[in-house]
Amino acid sequence: MAQPQASDGAETGKPPLRIGMVGYAFMGAAHSQGWRTAGRVFDLPLRPEMAVICGRDADAVRAAADRHGWAGTETDWRALVERDDIDLVDICTPGDSHAEIALAALAAGKHVLCEKPLANTVEEAEAMARAAEEATARGQLAMVGFNYRRVPATALARRMVAEGRLGTLRHVRVAYLQDWLVDPEFPLTWRLRREHAGSGSLGDLGAHIVDLAQYLAGERLAGVSALTETFVRERPLPTGPSSGLNAVSAVGTGQVTVDDAALFTGRFASGALASFEATRYATGRKNALRIELNGERGSLAFDLERLNELEYHDGTEPATHGGFRRILVTEPEHPYLEAWWPPGHGLGYEHTFVHQARDLVHAVAEGRVPEPSFADGLQVQRVLAAVEESAEKNSVYTLIAA
Amino acid sequence: MAQPQASDGAETGKPPLRIGMVGYAFMGAAHSQGWRTAGRVFDLPLRPEMAVICGRDADAVRAAADRHGWAGTETDWRALVERDDIDLVDICTPGDSHAEIALAALAAGKHVLCEKPLANTVEEAEAMARAAEEATARGQLAMVGFNYRRVPATALARRMVAEGRLGTLRHVRVAYLQDWLVDPEFPLTWRLRREHAGSGSLGDLGAHIVDLAQYLAGERLAGVSALTETFVRERPLPTGPSSGLNAVSAVGTGQVTVDDAALFTGRFASGALASFEATRYATGRKNALRIELNGERGSLAFDLERLNELEYHDGTEPATHGGFRRILVTEPEHPYLEAWWPPGHGLGYEHTFVHQARDLVHAVAEGRVPEPSFADGLQVQRVLAAVEESAEKNSVYTLIAA
Amino acid sequence: MAQPQASDGAETGKPPLRIGMVGYAFMGAAHSQGWRTAGRVFDLPLRPEMAVICGRDADAVRAAADRHGWAGTETDWRALVERDDIDLVDICTPGDSHAEIALAALAAGKHVLCEKPLANTVEEAEAMARAAEEATARGQLAMVGFNYRRVPATALARRMVAEGRLGTLRHVRVAYLQDWLVDPEFPLTWRLRREHAGSGSLGDLGAHIVDLAQYLAGERLAGVSALTETFVRERPLPTGPSSGLNAVSAVGTGQVTVDDAALFTGRFASGALASFEATRYATGRKNALRIELNGERGSLAFDLERLNELEYHDGTEPATHGGFRRILVTEPEHPYLEAWWPPGHGLGYEHTFVHQARDLVHAVAEGRVPEPSFADGLQVQRVLAAVEESAEKNSVYTLIAA
Amino acid sequence: MAQPQASDGAETGKPPLRIGMVGYAFMGAAHSQGWRTAGRVFDLPLRPEMAVICGRDADAVRAAADRHGWAGTETDWRALVERDDIDLVDICTPGDSHAEIALAALAAGKHVLCEKPLANTVEEAEAMARAAEEATARGQLAMVGFNYRRVPATALARRMVAEGRLGTLRHVRVAYLQDWLVDPEFPLTWRLRREHAGSGSLGDLGAHIVDLAQYLAGERLAGVSALTETFVRERPLPTGPSSGLNAVSAVGTGQVTVDDAALFTGRFASGALASFEATRYATGRKNALRIELNGERGSLAFDLERLNELEYHDGTEPATHGGFRRILVTEPEHPYLEAWWPPGHGLGYEHTFVHQARDLVHAVAEGRVPEPSFADGLQVQRVLAAVEESAEKNSVYTLIAA
Repeated sequence: MAQPQASDGAETGKPPLRIGMVGYAFMGAAHSQGWRTAGRVFDLPLRPEMAVICGRDADAVRAAADRHGWAGTETDWRALVERDDIDLVDICTPGDSHAEIALAALAAGKHVLCEKPLANTVEEAEAMARAAEEATARGQLAMVGFNYRRVPATALARRMVAEGRLGTLRHVRVAYLQDWLVDPEFPLTWRLRREHAGSGSLGDLGAHIVDLAQYLAGERLAGVSALTETFVRERPLPTGPSSGLNAVSAVGTGQVTVDDAALFTGRFASGALASFEATRYATGRKNALRIELNGERGSLAFDLERLNELEYHDGTEPATHGGFRRILVTEPEHPYLEAWWPPGHGLGYEHTFVHQARDLVHAVAEGRVPEPSFADGLQVQRVLAAVEESAEKNSVYTLIAA
Repeated sequence: MAQPQASDGAETGKPPLRIGMVGYAFMGAAHSQGWRTAGRVFDLPLRPEMAVICGRDADAVRAAADRHGWAGTETDWRALVERDDIDLVDICTPGDSHAEIALAALAAGKHVLCEKPLANTVEEAEAMARAAEEATARGQLAMVGFNYRRVPATALARRMVAEGRLGTLRHVRVAYLQDWLVDPEFPLTWRLRREHAGSGSLGDLGAHIVDLAQYLAGERLAGVSALTETFVRERPLPTGPSSGLNAVSAVGTGQVTVDDAALFTGRFASGALASFEATRYATGRKNALRIELNGERGSLAFDLERLNELEYHDGTEPATHGGFRRILVTEPEHPYLEAWWPPGHGLGYEHTFVHQARDLVHAVAEGRVPEPSFADGLQVQRVLAAVEESAEKNSVYTLIAA
Repeated sequence: MAQPQASDGAETGKPPLRIGMVGYAFMGAAHSQGWRTAGRVFDLPLRPEMAVICGRDADAVRAAADRHGWAGTETDWRALVERDDIDLVDICTPGDSHAEIALAALAAGKHVLCEKPLANTVEEAEAMARAAEEATARGQLAMVGFNYRRVPATALARRMVAEGRLGTLRHVRVAYLQDWLVDPEFPLTWRLRREHAGSGSLGDLGAHIVDLAQYLAGERLAGVSALTETFVRERPLPTGPSSGLNAVSAVGTGQVTVDDAALFTGRFASGALASFEATRYATGRKNALRIELNGERGSLAFDLERLNELEYHDGTEPATHGGFRRILVTEPEHPYLEAWWPPGHGLGYEHTFVHQARDLVHAVAEGRVPEPSFADGLQVQRVLAAVEESAEKNSVYTLIAA
Repeated sequence: MAQPQASDGAETGKPPLRIGMVGYAFMGAAHSQGWRTAGRVFDLPLRPEMAVICGRDADAVRAAADRHGWAGTETDWRALVERDDIDLVDICTPGDSHAEIALAALAAGKHVLCEKPLANTVEEAEAMARAAEEATARGQLAMVGFNYRRVPATALARRMVAEGRLGTLRHVRVAYLQDWLVDPEFPLTWRLRREHAGSGSLGDLGAHIVDLAQYLAGERLAGVSALTETFVRERPLPTGPSSGLNAVSAVGTGQVTVDDAALFTGRFASGALASFEATRYATGRKNALRIELNGERGSLAFDLERLNELEYHDGTEPATHGGFRRILVTEPEHPYLEAWWPPGHGLGYEHTFVHQARDLVHAVAEGRVPEPSFADGLQVQRVLAAVEESAEKNSVYTLIAA
């Protein structure tokens, strides 16, 4: 009779990649699911080890460790980044602490995965990108968590654009529509305060779509013209710690100091036009990140609310039989799908974190800079800064700093 | 045995409304179908009589009269507008002749229906609106042909907005996507030359969506910020007369002098945000006029490629059972549907012209100014002018003249 | 100055095809729209002339003539079919009078268009098919009105199947779902009484889908196994004349003597399997005639509620880029579309009657038997009879008489 | 500084539920993901422990243990079921071994989770249901793995039916469409051989839809009428061990001894009608389990290819605003969603196994018979047997044994 034996993968002989994660709210849960699953589904060169989770409240972080399956806990991120038994620091905190933690982690010799947006200001992001570049020379790697690049359908879209299936690009239109602020009684969580979140829908949703649009287009924006708006300027204060999306309101109100919605148009370097909209006031739209690209030879369209699907129009086909087709992105030949289920058995939101973990582990094992890099994150930050500048300057077309 | 008898409706005793139509290309065919059908389906107070069709080429106009069922022909619109046996002049020519014909027709005491855009310049449109207002005092009526207000689904949307189902409006996003210019070998028809068309996708598609957005919102735009682009600046010359959308190319090339695409954002008077896109380069999108409105209490969405449907989200329902519902706008209680087929038996594009004819006949019979009036058409022209001004001034936010 | 002149097409020099139509309810209105429009849109070899409309109530038929544009009226169909100035009799009455009128019209030397189902019994249909065949020898033509063959999307589907794009056929699944009987208080119109309608959803909806399935498959059913059901067996009596779909209920109730729903499976001659469902109890489905065909090389899917679209899956494409594509069937190369609007400008339900008129006029002018012929209508009747027989015999598989 | 500590949940003080799983192909991988995740996302009363995985090939099972995270291995299921350190046996083998393993496991005092279909014959299923019932008296629980009850959208559908939102049920139509056998060169895996799989699409896909239809309807089928077909009767033999869905073909061919497709209609106890189709030949349909229920007050529709959505038509609403709405089943109030991501962040196929694990753990902790029970599995088997009997007897309507 075979003996039960420990099976955290240790027996496989694969070297471990010891993770220390800071933050354990929404993003912490999602990253945990990613780290827990990646090595069970994909054949990875390193064995991700959920070593330490870090948060300020000792009881809460202990509970989070138990819940999510982290071996140890820390209550001070400064202690975490200095630990010898950690290889990679995964930053899942609000944007106002990204720079400080990431810089310290890089200084301490760790690899870093940092949630998006990279930082709350261009200055912070520049410091981070600089530090990441220097760390690269020392063999450390840094990546920013634009997880929507890792939906199989968006990864397929990128591949198809790279194959030339769209030809010369004419239009990119992107919207990220949510509706969780429609109710004016929703409380003033940290996501609605500039000092913590940096900006509102712009940094939260806009950062995603700027990154995704540039990633899929394979080129960068040259300039933007923008409008932003805060529809509800005063909201009830939340009681107790808020996790960003969920909160209970309390006595008293406070000022909303971020944008509720941001609309901008822009030009890509190639001359293609782009339009962007990020809002938390699109009643009935829950997580509708929609992107469409039109090129001289074809078009692609994606909606995050139907994330297993990619729509493709092959413009080179005869008009009689042409049309937007719904590719169900669940075939073994599709990106990331070699390891999952048979065709038609869809994936979900959290799989983007599994794929992110997979890709980062490969990058670390191979010693190459992962994408999106901190430099990519900085460039997105510059686009967001140009959006804010244009919005302040009467929407005037504003070039994006190189 | 009953005797066969003439049945153009003369026997009904209804007074006639004698139409003289100028132009017989795409719009002329569509208006003919509208005039031919309206009185056969709806119970109208007047009997539309397809009296005279007018075009410069005598043979061609004679053939068009036979094809479309017009009783007589004219080859000079000046003669047409002066005829005593004509009550209403229907202008289906390119935009560069709208003002001259409309002013003459109004001066000659006729009612006028004028295709959109009302004119190629604000100045022309102002003169037309002024003349229309003066004519109203004399009992003459003038209407501009924004036919997309008369899709049952858009008319229902308007009714629902007016009922307060959306509450405070937050967002209006509109795109009118076509793809007939993707091929750089498509010839230089009159629609691509500023002297005839006034502008490109802006005046052709943009005029529709500006009117529709304001109509559905029930309010007007305050200002806009715009980008325009001409992707393909030189095209083959067409051979022979071109009808705008169809043409055969010939030796030689010419300059495209209008925009290929126009993107603009804007603010409504109430503070709601709007985004607009008009393009003829959205590969695979044939006639995708899409509009979505988000309000505090609900949302509506429409796509002209599925014109019998209206999507509605009732934001006051519990989240557990809420969702965008597909209203099949074919019920007898829906606008214009009292006279058509049983539920589920859809209508098509041309029915907008039947409904336009119906509404105009009612307005004439009742002596009230029809909507959209020339004043409405002028206001749309002012929006388009502000778009062009903003595009020329580095996208700066530009107020719309009142 | 050109003179107004009569323009019912007489001036074109085309020989007329003089129509006498019996019945003026729902189908009469639809056929009128077809006859009125066909020659205005398509270039026909004959000029359809809306000569005489016939109905029992003199005032009502006079009003219908005025409304729909028929020149004369008759109150006795026997007089109509004998008139010398009529070339074609168009039968739009309930099924119980089809055989008698059609036989008399054929005997009187007329061409005949007969609404579906061809008759209420196989015996009647046999007599009609026999008479039609004999009449063919005399140069008379007869056609049955399965108008759904003439949706551009279904005609395109037929063309694609004939081109071999599906390869060996495996499955045909069809449903025709309506919901107008869900309310048990809906009154007992003629459509719910066996003596008038022959059967219920089976003859009304089932006849359409049996014809369409066989037409698209390009082959006939060999046998069927069926279940039928009458969910609501007693309904209020209607007041006054009922038009089938609309009625006002009155005092007293009566027995529903037809099926409410019919489900059947079957085998095609080739071995492909088929499933059928016809019901008036599918709450929320208004006119959902849905058909899907799966073959070894590809699949097609259609839904009448979105009649401008055809879904096509090309099974020979690599799985990476394959998917069901939405063909917007509005291109000039698509069936019937050469004469209509630019791409993306959709058609509606009534256009099937315009196309039916067009095809019948061509057949008459060319002296060839139109499709679907009375023989085709008889064969559908035999399928329906086999369905009823199977349903009565405990669903046993029942061969269809050849 | 906090110490890293073991965190397989042991520290939580929750009693463990020690799982022994037999089989490690497709279903084994899916169940592993379920066991691994359930306790990390949901707050469970017991701590699932992935104790032992069992398979015949020692090396392969060792590799599977490492990959999927099982602590120990066994190569003989008889040894597994006798182990004292196992509480629950999870059976993921082909159907021909279900009965033997389940009976032994129950006899050995274990709880049992058995993949569907419960068995390959009614006789086996009867023995299993009997044994399960007896074991219940001893405190052991048994459940069959109809995981599609645990898609949040289907669970919501069940809740809505139970709330009376559909009223009297009229129609249930279900199809499970796949296409992996379209290619005649696909090899003869175990799923195509009666001795292993029991039946073909009927037992594999049909079992799912029979269970789901009855579960959602809240009532059982009374009888069925069926057609089955094997389109491709001879296929290449596979090389090496096949996992069912994937295989490499080899020299020689063999007979397909199961059905390729099964169509059946039926009646529910209440009189509602049902239609079923299960096939592996629906080109382009990858995993299209579609179910629609129509009741007097409303309708529901679901498609597994869009598993985060439920379509609902509320028939009590005014027709003017009614329509099928797309409920995005991702709200915290939706079944299973309390523990996952914010609204709009969809789940995937594998989550059904997480939910199955969750529900089973709760049932075990509370000592109540889980659903679907072995008795439920037996009843499904009886429906499948009636389908086969009807298909053999010329489709005659066949009552389902009680």
